[in-house]
This record gives sequence, structure tokens and C-alpha cells, in this order.
Amino acid sequence: MLKVAVIGAGSWGTALANIAAENANCTYLWVRRRKLADEIIKTHENRLYLPGAKISTEINISTNLEQVVSKADIVIMAVPSHAVRVMAKQLRYYLKNDVVVVSASKGIELDSFKRMSQVLAEELYNGDNKNLVALSGPSHAEEVIRNLPTAIVAASSNQHAAEMLQDALMNTNFRIYTNTDIIGVELGGALKNVIAICSGISDGLGFGDNSRAALMTRGITEIIRLGIALGAKPETFSGLSGIGDLIVTCSSQFSRNRKAGMKIGQGKTVKEITESTNMVIEGFNTTKATFLLAKKYGIEMPITEQAYLVLFEGKNPAAAVNSLMNRVGKHEHEDTISQNFFIR
Amino acid sequence: MLKVAVIGAGSWGTALANIAAENANCTYLWVRRRKLADEIIKTHENRLYLPGAKISTEINISTNLEQVVSKADIVIMAVPSHAVRVMAKQLRYYLKNDVVVVSASKGIELDSFKRMSQVLAEELYNGDNKNLVALSGPSHAEEVIRNLPTAIVAASSNQHAAEMLQDALMNTNFRIYTNTDIIGVELGGALKNVIAICSGISDGLGFGDNSRAALMTRGITEIIRLGIALGAKPETFSGLSGIGDLIVTCSSQFSRNRKAGMKIGQGKTVKEITESTNMVIEGFNTTKATFLLAKKYGIEMPITEQAYLVLFEGKNPAAAVNSLMNRVGKHEHEDTISQNFFIR
Repeated sequence: MLKVAVIGAGSWGTALANIAAENANCTYLWVRRRKLADEIIKTHENRLYLPGAKISTEINISTNLEQVVSKADIVIMAVPSHAVRVMAKQLRYYLKNDVVVVSASKGIELDSFKRMSQVLAEELYNGDNKNLVALSGPSHAEEVIRNLPTAIVAASSNQHAAEMLQDALMNTNFRIYTNTDIIGVELGGALKNVIAICSGISDGLGFGDNSRAALMTRGITEIIRLGIALGAKPETFSGLSGIGDLIVTCSSQFSRNRKAGMKIGQGKTVKEITESTNMVIEGFNTTKATFLLAKKYGIEMPITEQAYLVLFEGKNPAAAVNSLMNRVGKHEHEDTISQNFFIR
Repeated sequence: MLKVAVIGAGSWGTALANIAAENANCTYLWVRRRKLADEIIKTHENRLYLPGAKISTEINISTNLEQVVSKADIVIMAVPSHAVRVMAKQLRYYLKNDVVVVSASKGIELDSFKRMSQVLAEELYNGDNKNLVALSGPSHAEEVIRNLPTAIVAASSNQHAAEMLQDALMNTNFRIYTNTDIIGVELGGALKNVIAICSGISDGLGFGDNSRAALMTRGITEIIRLGIALGAKPETFSGLSGIGDLIVTCSSQFSRNRKAGMKIGQGKTVKEITESTNMVIEGFNTTKATFLLAKKYGIEMPITEQAYLVLFEGKNPAAAVNSLMNRVGKHEHEDTISQNFFIR
């Protein structure tokens, strides 16, 4: 029996802990707030983040980080990306030697531009990432907790570590594929939130499915361009953690990034939206980080650029869409795939 | 001023004629049924296929094929795919010499397995396709008629022909990219309907966004496999006419293929659905043609296979989803992209 520790009782952490417990692992869920922990213990429900879903009574709920992490075979980090570094600093002392550490957070660290597994490698292993896995793909927690069929990706340069996570969590309704391209998998998961915000803006402006599909299609090509520059394999972006996650995040009623975009399209500001929710809109920071990253590497990312201008420079959303629709470029692949995607 | 003739007053033909007229082309729309033609002339609305949308008064509505096609610079075929061959036989005598003929139909001919531009080439030019263009991409007519931003692809081995169509139809809200891979563009448009039916089945069974995203992601990889075998360029499928059209068809409220799949998921049969609508569900025939094509070429297409079994062999939809979720295969790209997509 494996001990699985999940750090963070947001919707995704709670859903993952539930799967771990249902798969008969010895499962611990670390909850930051005492009040929420008590409520989950009492009601077997996380009313704050997954209201209405009963969770396994086998999960050990705790606010004691040492108890949760000590002797764990697998530690899953499911805190917002901006909290990953500080949490890693706290739990490093409790990790056993050959533990597999899993990043389930989707973001890029502001300022350093680092992926979450890079942040974890720095804090836990002096930069080495041999036992780190990134878990990503189209997987709204609200559906996973209801056992609706889901397929995601466990990525690691260490195939053995990815397979250990796969063995612990996979079941009939939760299918895990492994992938060795951790860079591509993490970038896909983080950058799709930028396009999700744009999809939401498009919806908020009253545009339709055609516009959204165009945004998503052109969006994945600019993600691929940046991904290649950062060392990802282009084919990863055509998989579950790339286009798959993009699809679900840009279309789903559950996507908070898309919903935030819709409010932007309707005239709200980033500040107003951030202050009105207890959930983290990862895409806001990721848009800023991606815009700056693209500048640093000289990569053309027109959709990300317009998103940045709308979110942080006060550009009118409708004017941003106009800028995108009126770009020069007649042949579909002239500026994108044929140059960068295949000829490397 | 160009003369643009649109053949077929379904929703897509009507929307394309409206764009042609708004772009100040001399525009003719051929309507098969006298009654519908009279109604459009009287009301400036196609109440049968695009209820609620006013169309340009500049469109010349006619049931006279010779009047519509004669001296046309561009002829756009917007009839259901099973009617393309018989229409081509009728209008070939009226075509002027250097006319550009555009296929706007998305399907594969049963028995012959031919793409629509191949059917047109046979009937119009003895197999030569030098002036043929395929128009495809994420473009629900219901949104195009309302001038919501849309981006699609005009594909032809003859770049000049594609650009002529582009010049005639493109405007601020209707952006046309050209592409030389007509095989890939046509296959993307036709085969996405198979996956759309599957997405609908998944929705009809009560599954969620995660399942749909997994189906779409795995679906495009099997489309790519078949596409490569048939001579398409893999990168085409990552563009508007591939993943873009797949996204819109699998997610939209307007997609009749998805809606038909939902009814299948809820227990209806192909026969019941076909008899209850005046619109053609292209995906039914396409599923059969694609299943047989895949067999002929020895291409693994597990989603298409399950769709075929459900639609034509009475397999239980839930059992089909189970078959898909429990397939062997642990690494994301082991059976798909890495082998076929890049190493050619």
C-alpha cells in the first residue's frame, strides 16, 4: 500500500485525494485552514471548493504538514502556482529519500519565468528533477469527483516516477498516460489559461463559437512557437495536456479563467475580478509572464499580446479582437507551423 | 465585379451567398425548391434553414441552374455531399472555361471513398483539379450570417484559384486563409463529423467536458493517421480546417452532427434521427466511409470503429465508451504521433 499525500484542499487537490483513496492508497490531504479541515472531517464534503460532492471517508484530513508528508511515497502539490515555492520550502524536511513529488499546479512563476517542476527541483533537489512528475490535462475537478471519464498525462524525465503515479491513481474512469516531455506538458497546462481568458473575452463581447474556435486554433500555434523555444516537443501540444486541456478550459462552464475573461469582455477589470472571488485566476499572472517570456525570446504571440494589453494596459477588448482579425498574413501556415513546427 | 454563383440554399449556402453579396459581388443563389425560393424572395429570409436572419436584398434568388451558373467567375457548391456528383453532372454544361469551382460540402462519397473535390474533378474536368477550391473551417452559418468574427481556409493546389475566392469573400469579420493541402483540408472537414457524433454520444450519456476533450484530442490523432495515409500534410490538421473545425463541431449548440450523437447516446437509432429532421447528418455516412477506408488502409481508428459499431451494428453506446477507456497503451504518443506524425 502506498502512502499518497496531497498538499492543498482546493477543488483539484480534493478530487485527486479522493481518487487516491478510492484506489485504496493510504491517503492524506493537507488543508491549510483549520476551519475548512474541520468542516471536511465533519461533513465529508469540501463545501468551499467542491460543493455537493461527497468525498471518501478514507481520506486522512490534516493541517499538520509533517504528519501528511512524512513517509509518503507520493506527494502531490496542488496549491496555486504562486504558493508552490513557499510550500516546497516548508515540506522539504519531511520528504523521504525516494519520494515521487508531483506538480498538479498550472502556472509560470512571475519574474523567474520558471515552470512549477523547476521551482520544485530548486527547492527540493538543488535543481535536479529526477523524481518530479507534472500532472496535467483536461480534468475539471468537478467532473473527476463524480467519476466522469477523464484522461490526463503524467510527465517526467523519469519514466519510473510517472508510472508509479499512474499505478497509484489510474482506474476505469481516470486514465493516465505517461509522457517524457515535462517541459511541453507543463507549458501546455499553464499557457492554455491565457487563451482561455481570450475565449472568455470573445464570449463576453457576444461573439460566437466560430470566433472561439479561431482563437483556440491560432492560440495553440503561438503556444507551440514559444514551447519550441523553451525546449518542448511540438507533438506534446497536440496531445491531452496541450490541445485537450485548451479545449476543456476554453469551452467549459467550470473554467474560472474563461469566466474571468467573460467578465473582462463585459467591462470588468482584473482588480475587480480578483477581489470578488476566493479562487485564484492563474491566467492573469500567466498572461503577464508569457507576454514577457515571448518578448525575451523574440517569439511572435499576437493573441497573448492582445490579452496582456487588455488585462494590464487598459486596452478595449473589442479593439483587441479587431487587431487580431485584421492582421496581415494570407496563408494559414506561413507564419506558424511550417517554419517552426517541423523544420527544427 | 465578379459573378458568384452559390448552388444550394441550405444554411451554409445561404450564409455564403449573403457574404458574397455584402462584399459587392454579383451574386446568384440557386434554390432547388420553388416554394423556398419564393419565400426567400418575398421575405429576404431563409426561414427553413436560417430562421430569424435577414439576408441581403442584392442576392439574385433563382431555381434556374443555367441562369445562376452561366458566366459565373466563381461557383460555390453548397449541397449535401451525397448530391454533389449529380449536381455537377447537371451544371457542367453551363460553366465558363476559367471558372473557379468551390466545394463547400463536407463529406466523403460512400463506396468510392472520394473527397468532394475529387468528385467534382471527375465530373467537371475529367479528373483534373486545377481550378477547384475546398472551403472549410470552423464556420457555423448561424454565426456567419450575423457577421460574428470567423476565420476559415480556402484550399487548392492552384494558389491563384484560392486567392480569387479569398478576394471575393474576405472582409473584416470573415477572414479566409489559403492552404495548398486540399486533401488535408477536405479530410479534416469531413472526418471531424465522426468525432462530433462521438462527442454528442458522450454528452448524451451524461459524461462531461473532460470526456469530450479526451475524445476530441484522441480523435484528431486518428484523423491524422488516416490523413497521412491518404496523402494529406499532418500540419493541416492542427489548423483551422482540422482542430479548429473539430472544436466548433464538437462543442457548439449549432452542430447537427453533435446533436444527432446526443440522441444516439440517449437511445435513439440512426433511422429514427434521419426520419425526424429535414437536415442531412453528414456524419452518419462519413462514419461508415471512414470505418471502411481505415480498414482498407490498415489504419487503427478506435474511436471511428466504436462509432461505426454503435451507429450501424447496434452496439450499446456506454459499452463503446468503456471499450475506448480501457484500451491498452500507457504512453501518450506511443501509438500515434511520434511514429507517423513527424517521422515521415
